[in-house]
Amino acid sequence: MSARAGIVVTGTEVLTGRVADRNGPWVAGRLLDLGVGVAHITVCGDRPDDLRAQLRFLAAEGVDLIVTTGGLGPTADDLTVATVAEFTGRALHLDTNLEAHIADIIGRWMKRRNADPDPGPLRAGIRKQALVPEGAQPIPPTGTAPGVAIPADVESGSPTILVLPGPPRELQAMWPTAIATSEVTAALAGRDDFRQEIIRAYGLSEADLAETLRDAEHDVAGFDDLEITTCLRNGEVEMVTRFPDGASSAYSTLAAAIANRHQRHIFSTDGSTIDDQVVAALAGRTVATAESCTGGMVAARLTDRAGSSAYIMGGVVAYANETKIGQLDVPAELIAAHGAVSEQVAAAMAEGAVARLGADVALSTTGIAGPGGGSDAKPVGTVCFGVAVAGRPTSTWTRYFPGDRANVRLLSTVAAMHFLASVVGDPS
Amino acid sequence: MSARAGIVVTGTEVLTGRVADRNGPWVAGRLLDLGVGVAHITVCGDRPDDLRAQLRFLAAEGVDLIVTTGGLGPTADDLTVATVAEFTGRALHLDTNLEAHIADIIGRWMKRRNADPDPGPLRAGIRKQALVPEGAQPIPPTGTAPGVAIPADVESGSPTILVLPGPPRELQAMWPTAIATSEVTAALAGRDDFRQEIIRAYGLSEADLAETLRDAEHDVAGFDDLEITTCLRNGEVEMVTRFPDGASSAYSTLAAAIANRHQRHIFSTDGSTIDDQVVAALAGRTVATAESCTGGMVAARLTDRAGSSAYIMGGVVAYANETKIGQLDVPAELIAAHGAVSEQVAAAMAEGAVARLGADVALSTTGIAGPGGGSDAKPVGTVCFGVAVAGRPTSTWTRYFPGDRANVRLLSTVAAMHFLASVVGDPS
Repeated sequence: MSARAGIVVTGTEVLTGRVADRNGPWVAGRLLDLGVGVAHITVCGDRPDDLRAQLRFLAAEGVDLIVTTGGLGPTADDLTVATVAEFTGRALHLDTNLEAHIADIIGRWMKRRNADPDPGPLRAGIRKQALVPEGAQPIPPTGTAPGVAIPADVESGSPTILVLPGPPRELQAMWPTAIATSEVTAALAGRDDFRQEIIRAYGLSEADLAETLRDAEHDVAGFDDLEITTCLRNGEVEMVTRFPDGASSAYSTLAAAIANRHQRHIFSTDGSTIDDQVVAALAGRTVATAESCTGGMVAARLTDRAGSSAYIMGGVVAYANETKIGQLDVPAELIAAHGAVSEQVAAAMAEGAVARLGADVALSTTGIAGPGGGSDAKPVGTVCFGVAVAGRPTSTWTRYFPGDRANVRLLSTVAAMHFLASVVGDPS
Repeated sequence: MSARAGIVVTGTEVLTGRVADRNGPWVAGRLLDLGVGVAHITVCGDRPDDLRAQLRFLAAEGVDLIVTTGGLGPTADDLTVATVAEFTGRALHLDTNLEAHIADIIGRWMKRRNADPDPGPLRAGIRKQALVPEGAQPIPPTGTAPGVAIPADVESGSPTILVLPGPPRELQAMWPTAIATSEVTAALAGRDDFRQEIIRAYGLSEADLAETLRDAEHDVAGFDDLEITTCLRNGEVEMVTRFPDGASSAYSTLAAAIANRHQRHIFSTDGSTIDDQVVAALAGRTVATAESCTGGMVAARLTDRAGSSAYIMGGVVAYANETKIGQLDVPAELIAAHGAVSEQVAAAMAEGAVARLGADVALSTTGIAGPGGGSDAKPVGTVCFGVAVAGRPTSTWTRYFPGDRANVRLLSTVAAMHFLASVVGDPS
């Protein structure tokens, strides 16, 4: 059995749907890496009653560890530490070392801003942030909010609780220190080692994969030891399998069965993403983009990567026909003859980007993202792609994507990455 | 008192952090629009025990309505309806009308794909999806998964439960029908009408706003009737206030106090976003982009809007210096003299985009997103912006953004939108 954990995300802005939570998924992923199963994630606002109820719920469910995120600020509505202390029956005491450490951080920050703040409320805020439940281990802040690790209490049935701040950057920076505390180590001791393997496929339907898995249930010995989840996202199907070391051969048999049926669609079995593969396939060649319906999303995705300036020349967002003609040398007659959304224009855009930007490779998109602009021949969701490689014939595709404007643009961006990887990775 | 609701998000891919949940925030937002307070959001995987525990928890917390999302597919691991039926003590029965309706949808879908599926498993899947708890109201599917509304049961203490599918498009399309069912209407009857107002500011620190709110606590009569949440996101501070109709004058007094202190930073009090304001300020003029460090993110954001092809000419992602020179006519000497990250180059990029793309207005970004490329004079996070308007002097700015590459790029994109709105909205 692996250890089980619960995650409590605090924040009214998350609970009310105005901000998407980034901490729950991140902490869940890191716990899984440690071989810890996440049983529940709960989200609550800034009402201490609701937070208490969630802690009580997770403790009653018998989790080994609760991780809370958020509610550690200097202001009165940040109540996590006080509520957790009360829940575990521990008094709060002022940690003067911590107080000095936070004051030092804020002092340096104020100095850089040449600020002359009212020291009264500031001191009160620092003092509040330096309150630690008795017997708990403070975790030094990377922002101004320290975390706390509180040991389990067998008598009251309270599991180990790890309290971390809400800003994702602070939380993530504090994570290694937090999981190395003796409190967390003790909570996770004795867990099984789990491995995790990921198979990624593009253009495979979830139903087809489900059928293969149904067959494998009968055919693969030890199938029941594999925890399999499949997920379709933006045209990619991801199958994640967790298993104890003893089930490695069952996994190998399953992986072989899947490869046998779906080889054509599988693009990754080593954890790499299509973004990784585009960079690997480029192998130092420079790339440019020529985007119409994706409007910069492909360029934004390529440049998202640190170090991408080494191989990305840039691109043209050719939204208007004038821009396709003026900036990418697409012949006006070609647009008149075939329409802006056509493989002919996609090819000309990609070739224009190679020539204009002096890149080795260029990728183009032109399509109808909607909601307007569709026709019977070219309905909303029709998108044409081109990949030009200097000195080789240009490749083109047409695809039809379902959904609204945002969906069509997102699916087009993912498709563009796959087309790019497949052409530049092809040695011919 | 407003009605209270809990949301249960099911899905192992969400629980394990591989997919960000979109349904919890969306449903929470819609419930708030209806004047319903959301007390808890919980996330669980595909273990029926965990789902039962979460339902029990929410029922014990006394919520008036539970909304579940996901777990309604045709396969065996989709267990929401069966688990909810068991939890509420209701037997499942086959709704033959629903069965015929789903079979019809799938039949048409198969025909379009020219598929000839094995009818056995298909029929079993349809049958499973057409099982409805006794006394519950089915909600017709927009995909293939119907929803269910189950009335509250005073005796067992079970609140009204609304079961909806996981794919966000299906859930959102079914929402109006779902909330119009007599089960949901009954659950939300008798609630107070709440209003919600939003003040948005840019460049205002959350601490400064907190101080204003602390003062208002003393100065504004009826302050306690206002539910205020503040949230800093990508450089924008959003203050959302919910209040019953009787507290309108307290809100007006508060809003005036905030306007009095922070007028310079407030950009929206009518619910409009900066994206709305950019479009309004353009007032039909065409726009182009010239992006370096944001690598297409500004263009992607501008073209995200339906109908944007009417005023967006396109843009140049000028990542390499050669692209700045070749595609935007930035003089090589200017880059040599001031560096690619300079207001001089930002101005030349914006002016080049106006000239090359024939736009009325152009916006540029050039900066150091990191992790490499920083220096003492221009550390990582330094970003220069330009806005050129044909026939007017070009405006430029330099800003320093904290955080990692993704953060710098995101903050730069938001800043670009604000600079663009402020220049094109200025009549001078």
